[in-house]
Amino acid sequence: LAEGEAPPRPPVVHYHMNNVTTTSDPVGNRESILILTPLARFYNEYWDNLCKLSYPHDLISLGFIIPKGREGNAATQQLQERIAITQAPTNKNRFASITILRQDEEPVVLQDEKERHALSAQKERRAAMSRARNALLFTTLGPTTSWVLWLDSDVVETPPGLIQDLASHDKPLVVPNCMQRYFNKDKDVMDIRPYDFNSWIDSPTARALGDKMKPDEILLEGYAEMATYRTLMAYLADASGDTHREIALDGVGGTALLVKADVHRDGAMFPAFPFYHLIETEGFAKMAQRLGWHATGLPNYFVYHFNE
Amino acid sequence: LAEGEAPPRPPVVHYHMNNVTTTSDPVGNRESILILTPLARFYNEYWDNLCKLSYPHDLISLGFIIPKGREGNAATQQLQERIAITQAPTNKNRFASITILRQDEEPVVLQDEKERHALSAQKERRAAMSRARNALLFTTLGPTTSWVLWLDSDVVETPPGLIQDLASHDKPLVVPNCMQRYFNKDKDVMDIRPYDFNSWIDSPTARALGDKMKPDEILLEGYAEMATYRTLMAYLADASGDTHREIALDGVGGTALLVKADVHRDGAMFPAFPFYHLIETEGFAKMAQRLGWHATGLPNYFVYHFNE
Ligand SMILES: Nc1nc2c(ncn2[C@@H]2O[C@H](COP(=O)(O)OP(=O)(O)O)[C@@H](O)[C@H]2O)c(=O)[nH]1
Ligand SMILES: Nc1nc2c(ncn2[C@@H]2O[C@H](COP(=O)(O)OP(=O)(O)O)[C@@H](O)[C@H]2O)c(=O)[nH]1
Ligand SMILES: [Mn+2]
Ligand SMILES: [Mn+2]
Repeated sequence: LAEGEAPPRPPVVHYHMNNVTTTSDPVGNRESILILTPLARFYNEYWDNLCKLSYPHDLISLGFIIPKGREGNAATQQLQERIAITQAPTNKNRFASITILRQDEEPVVLQDEKERHALSAQKERRAAMSRARNALLFTTLGPTTSWVLWLDSDVVETPPGLIQDLASHDKPLVVPNCMQRYFNKDKDVMDIRPYDFNSWIDSPTARALGDKMKPDEILLEGYAEMATYRTLMAYLADASGDTHREIALDGVGGTALLVKADVHRDGAMFPAFPFYHLIETEGFAKMAQRLGWHATGLPNYFVYHFNE
Repeated sequence: LAEGEAPPRPPVVHYHMNNVTTTSDPVGNRESILILTPLARFYNEYWDNLCKLSYPHDLISLGFIIPKGREGNAATQQLQERIAITQAPTNKNRFASITILRQDEEPVVLQDEKERHALSAQKERRAAMSRARNALLFTTLGPTTSWVLWLDSDVVETPPGLIQDLASHDKPLVVPNCMQRYFNKDKDVMDIRPYDFNSWIDSPTARALGDKMKPDEILLEGYAEMATYRTLMAYLADASGDTHREIALDGVGGTALLVKADVHRDGAMFPAFPFYHLIETEGFAKMAQRLGWHATGLPNYFVYHFNE
């Protein structure tokens, strides 16, 4: 076979699922990983970090789902420009494969700040995100995928060892702490602050709120009128603490999230409907839990979200 | 390219989801279909019927998931013997592709009739079936799949026009009526009787039963101690009625079930946990409903289950 040429697809393929391992040594065991990104806006730093991942790139496949419309078109073009260089046949470090899905739907656009923060708008937006994540997941997960890394396109700073670091915990779901760099005016220095509030430990208050809700209502973090008293991983961050510290989580965010592919294969997906009053990534954690898979958070292992 | 040789796999593939149609004329629109079968026992009649399907075979992919152990080994061997002939490069009528997943799990074996019919055993068995169906679905559904046909391996009689007939209804989920041939001793003739009781219209009684249940309890059909008074499609069968007659369903069986791939892409899967007190295919119909997709039954369109 010539360089870059794949063997002809055999008409019958037979997979033994026990050969698809997910271990704490995924490089040693040559485990395939699928990195999935819902993509509305493209960030060069995101792509730079993908290219710098120290995990063997021939074991990495990438999948994107991009909405219809102007913003989606721009993101597609920027993505393709970077792909053209990274996937050049002459680049020994290129990825195993890349799948781009263009949706038939425009993104849920929320006009102003007020509307964007209304509960009903959040519900609609996160339901649309759920559908996008599911479409991406259901169509790209293959029989030989060991791991799925969910990574948002606006996560602009991640360590090159991200995959190995997260996988070394050997957990079904593992979530780093997603922070944000900002200029701290009081201290007159660059500083970091919590960003993703979807990774949390449940509280009796939140459960009681859920019990009193109508079937279709959802719990959301960050609304004063709905104080949940959950323990938010974002607030447990300790920049000088052990980066391997683990905590058990009940809800997870999707900015960066490593999942054993078997969790998805068992049926865990991103509910677009209220599931135990939770949707999207938080509902996913709950669904995984119902399937016997528990989430782990790494409060002191940081990735960083873009700051506009 | 030589006969049977696929082009080398491109490193980047771009799919426009609006090009993947699901219409009432799937042959005319060259729509791809994936036939999925959880397979514990192999039936030659099942394979014969697949081969006789009048839908273009180059648009049909097949996926199987087979349990570990003696029974699974036997089924795999029988399947492979038939595949070797059907998929021969010289057979112009071979299928587009075949994927076989071998599970790392033995089937849930229920020792005697009594145990097999115990509620707890049913729950465990159907949870295992759910996981098998999900693993098969999540790993075989591709970006270009328009339709998914779920077909049990012990459905031994189906019309050659099955796919076109079901698709012509242009419904997100459509279920034929699964019957069984048997010898009617009273009439001294071969006769037909209902087989699959999982396709039903919900009843106030069943809903009230569900409301009174503990969160992890499930509703099942066919238990005297749990009379649901649901309308079972199996009992609406009229062999001389219009085969195109449609009814709206709330629960569906999986012996034969045509689903628009977008229903799965939105996240509808087979819950292995009680979902509105339903699991497996019945839970799937409920989940599809929560995602806005409704099931349709064809009481007078028959497929037939094996009779031991
Ligand atoms: N496919 C798709 N991706 C989206 C859409 N909206 C946002 N995204 C992407 O999904 C991820 C999360 O969205 P974002 O708006 O950053 O969420 P936030 O950080 O939680 O406010 C990012 O990677 C976005 O680029 C959408 O409508 N469709
Ligand atoms: N992969 C897998 N398939 C199974 C298992 N048990 C049954 N099957 C298959 O799943 C389908 C439904 O199972 P079956 O026992 O016929 O269910 P019933 O007709 O509803 O009693 C059939 O195609 C079986 O061959 C299992 O444990 N694993
Ligand atoms: Mn973001
Ligand atoms: Mn059967």
